[in-house]
Amino acid sequence: METVNHPTAEDMAVKVLLKSWTAQVARITDLVASLSDSDLQKEIAPGKNTGIYILGHLVAVHDALLPLLGFGSRLYSQELEQIFVKSPDKAGHTFPPVSELKKYWSEVNDVLLQHYNKLDFEAWLTRHEAVSPEDFAKEPHRNKLNVLISRTTHMSYHHGQLVLLKSKTQD
Amino acid sequence: METVNHPTAEDMAVKVLLKSWTAQVARITDLVASLSDSDLQKEIAPGKNTGIYILGHLVAVHDALLPLLGFGSRLYSQELEQIFVKSPDKAGHTFPPVSELKKYWSEVNDVLLQHYNKLDFEAWLTRHEAVSPEDFAKEPHRNKLNVLISRTTHMSYHHGQLVLLKSKTQD
Repeated sequence: METVNHPTAEDMAVKVLLKSWTAQVARITDLVASLSDSDLQKEIAPGKNTGIYILGHLVAVHDALLPLLGFGSRLYSQELEQIFVKSPDKAGHTFPPVSELKKYWSEVNDVLLQHYNKLDFEAWLTRHEAVSPEDFAKEPHRNKLNVLISRTTHMSYHHGQLVLLKSKTQD
Repeated sequence: METVNHPTAEDMAVKVLLKSWTAQVARITDLVASLSDSDLQKEIAPGKNTGIYILGHLVAVHDALLPLLGFGSRLYSQELEQIFVKSPDKAGHTFPPVSELKKYWSEVNDVLLQHYNKLDFEAWLTRHEAVSPEDFAKEPHRNKLNVLISRTTHMSYHHGQLVLLKSKTQD
């Protein structure tokens, strides 16, 4: 007799959360692919961040998820964090070319998803690496799920900005 | 003997998701409170949506969550949806005053949160009202949790835009 595995409510919750993550990644990937290098050099609004800075910022934040979630080391140099997280835009840093940043964006999200797919519901509720076991006992909401949601909304925040670089949009 | 209720992993997941929702609501509430009426009349970037349109859009989308999640009727007239969801900005509609929209934003989120707080993990995994029981049997990811996450990222998307109305920001 064949057995059919019905997903549990817990499996379904993980599925919904990962779908939301991958949908946000795909939206940014598609948007960035539709923008030219010169579009990405522009500011999202007068005096605000450039598209390339935001793209680099997203890459650096996602790369930092690898150690934060206990998946291993960053893929890229910590310099990305220096340029795109610790420094504001227009601080005089030389940015990697757009083509490199697009490659990084694709690579880091592929690696993250491979790790995500190995975690079950209970594993998502375990602590992330920026909280000690002692603190986690007192603040159990500081778990991997929290990080996943926070970085999903972070992508969405910057997606709402990058979309302004499109020449014709109602967003 | 005193009994201590340890939250289950399921309770913790719901807590983390609701914290993310309420944090996004609070960020937008605080940001909007910090902007003057004339700031909100401005476009987020040249030729793009105005702040007041985005605020009205968020109110209308959140009001529509009441029937969508089976919590009851909308609080406000369906005209908000006509103006702020079905029509683009600058379509010639007269908008409610900013003070009214701020009041609506506060009210609708208060009512939503009261309903959210009554749902346990399993209830979040049940279908929303825009999917039939038959379709839900085939597509069980079309649940209330999915709607919650999708509207959380939706807020974040527009938060990234509204922040551009601040005169001095690094976002």
